[in-house]
Amino acid sequence: MSKPKMFEKPTGAKDYLPEAVRKLRHIEREALACMRGWGYEQIITPTMEYYDTVGAASSTSDHKLYKLLNNRGTTLVLRSDMTSPIARVVSSLLKESEFPLRLSYHSNVFRSIEEEAGREVEFFQTGVELVGDSSAEADAEVVALAIASLKAAGVERFKIAIGHVGFLNGLLGEALPNRTEEQELLKSCLLGRDYVGYRDQLRKLSLEEPVRSELEGILRLRGGGEICDQALQLSLDETARESISHLCEIWDALKAYGVSEHVLIDLTMIGDFSYYTGMTFEGYAADLGFPVVSGGRYDNLLAQFGRPAGATGFALKTTRVLELLGAENDNEEERTLIVYDSTGRDEALAEAQRLRGEGALVVTVREDSLSNELQEAAHSDHFEYKGLRYTNLLVYLAGQGTNGGSAT
Amino acid sequence: MSKPKMFEKPTGAKDYLPEAVRKLRHIEREALACMRGWGYEQIITPTMEYYDTVGAASSTSDHKLYKLLNNRGTTLVLRSDMTSPIARVVSSLLKESEFPLRLSYHSNVFRSIEEEAGREVEFFQTGVELVGDSSAEADAEVVALAIASLKAAGVERFKIAIGHVGFLNGLLGEALPNRTEEQELLKSCLLGRDYVGYRDQLRKLSLEEPVRSELEGILRLRGGGEICDQALQLSLDETARESISHLCEIWDALKAYGVSEHVLIDLTMIGDFSYYTGMTFEGYAADLGFPVVSGGRYDNLLAQFGRPAGATGFALKTTRVLELLGAENDNEEERTLIVYDSTGRDEALAEAQRLRGEGALVVTVREDSLSNELQEAAHSDHFEYKGLRYTNLLVYLAGQGTNGGSAT
Repeated sequence: MSKPKMFEKPTGAKDYLPEAVRKLRHIEREALACMRGWGYEQIITPTMEYYDTVGAASSTSDHKLYKLLNNRGTTLVLRSDMTSPIARVVSSLLKESEFPLRLSYHSNVFRSIEEEAGREVEFFQTGVELVGDSSAEADAEVVALAIASLKAAGVERFKIAIGHVGFLNGLLGEALPNRTEEQELLKSCLLGRDYVGYRDQLRKLSLEEPVRSELEGILRLRGGGEICDQALQLSLDETARESISHLCEIWDALKAYGVSEHVLIDLTMIGDFSYYTGMTFEGYAADLGFPVVSGGRYDNLLAQFGRPAGATGFALKTTRVLELLGAENDNEEERTLIVYDSTGRDEALAEAQRLRGEGALVVTVREDSLSNELQEAAHSDHFEYKGLRYTNLLVYLAGQGTNGGSAT
Repeated sequence: MSKPKMFEKPTGAKDYLPEAVRKLRHIEREALACMRGWGYEQIITPTMEYYDTVGAASSTSDHKLYKLLNNRGTTLVLRSDMTSPIARVVSSLLKESEFPLRLSYHSNVFRSIEEEAGREVEFFQTGVELVGDSSAEADAEVVALAIASLKAAGVERFKIAIGHVGFLNGLLGEALPNRTEEQELLKSCLLGRDYVGYRDQLRKLSLEEPVRSELEGILRLRGGGEICDQALQLSLDETARESISHLCEIWDALKAYGVSEHVLIDLTMIGDFSYYTGMTFEGYAADLGFPVVSGGRYDNLLAQFGRPAGATGFALKTTRVLELLGAENDNEEERTLIVYDSTGRDEALAEAQRLRGEGALVVTVREDSLSNELQEAAHSDHFEYKGLRYTNLLVYLAGQGTNGGSAT
């Protein structure tokens, strides 16, 4: 193994320079403020968790977890999502708090990936968990809040697809009883949105024609509230039927919130987290091939931590939202440069303090004389100095007198 | 090894509940805004770095670094400070940017510790680096900015002690030539602020009386600008003499900033980072036994990353500052509870959306009827519901009509 060069960072790790940080901070601030408006309170959990607890409960496959040992030789993981850590906190520090609990977070999470894939191993998520409420209204609340958060973060064009784990499980269980492997095969096609593969698989299976055509028909079950009615025409078992009713109720509540224009019912959708038990959803922004938000209901996770409760939530893929936002126009900002020499120093530094106290952005620099460049600057409404843009110039030099001349 | 219980988190790892997060976010926001007022721009670097590069360049002893392996079998570390990662960025992504560079950060850092110590293994730091400026004014700027940041974060009573690595090195080199081990022994006493131990060591060494008394005399070299003059009376080599002159200049600039009342010159002070090469400082808050800020000049670190430059900076110990702040009064906040049943739902959810759009904090809940508790709430100026405090109640129930009655 060759030693890395000093200036190198690990593959898949990322540095964010000031312009990117400004945008990332903007998304973080606006999304969290939006969540707060819906009653969600922020929590922060540690980067490292026990492998045997939170690591095992997370939906991340084992080979994607970053593992390390602590001093006692116990295996730790870098958190791969925030849902399991929050389930731990709800069952420990917050175990006396009444349900429902509304919690939000902004956090980095980690996934070890094949280096060839060129994907990031650490990225940011901003999300909520609504714990202790199993109603359709709770599901509608998190979907509506996901929509509000995306808008607050500055994403304008997007669609949220919602589905229900129970519908596909029920339908496939009815159509392919005791043929679990074949069910999983079909589900993995749908998870990957590989509809051609799904049709191919259906053809290969030995199925009665009405069953085959019904299973193929679900590919058309995407649209508005009418999809629920269409689905109820199918021969569904109790699970699938209840799932559809639940989705109908969510749809009605989303209409009440006035956000149904952003929502698409998609009964072929399967959430990619193994812990989802009910409604799941994903949000796609125009021009971006991967989801910018995903969420769903997970009613069995909390029981693993000793406090059984229904829960639902979502995470904005903050790092991906970042890619959607245009460059902010930082050029309008006021920025003052104060130039001083030894004789003007005391007055210059005191003035800098005074201006910063008034909220100004001020940079001070010691120079023995004013360069030609800076002399010209005094007459324009903005100028560059050492790679930065300024709008005001104050001068405290013996030669120039303490003139405090200003470029505006 | 016993398996951890589901609700357990690793020793030394911490959860922050909403009240603590509000305070932590307040410190973060105010300190970063203050730094921005001085022209410092935020950057974010990855949690994991190469052990052989940033890990080796950091001042953290090897046994305190958290190590893990990536897919290629290369050793990574969880960053133990932000100074080395920023040196890496300055030498790579920012290598074309002109000096001086003013960069800020708010970040978690990691130190593996003996579990018995009960200390946190992950904590937050908020700080700056001023890279490419070796002047006394640059040092004074970061000290003055540290003071401004502490004030912005809400810390009122504190003292900053500043010293200079060169003074002690020069003085001890002159007094104990070629007796490096004994020099280190004395320095480690001073680093631990163990003045009794320092005197004991001096007595045990074979020293001429004037030398011994001079070395003991430095314990009295703590105070204002007059300390510099006193120090210049000692028999100093060139290094020590230049160090004192540099400190004098810093002191003068701090007077110009109007912040010298917060500053104490302490020539016995040694920064605890091995990479410090010049001025070092630490800030102590009233009632707290450990520093809330530390910083100093490190002129050799950048060269390790291939872009030699002088640099100076500091880090607020954000997690410790948190302990200094009293509980925020969250009770004044307006919070609206909307209660609805199936008949009132659509109107209720639409009203919630409208109010949130106006900036209100609104929680909705479905109930079939109004409890006695909530009926009384309508007549008081605030009330509790499921453990949370509200100031307004809006009701959309069939029984009560859509009255929208409000508690104010």
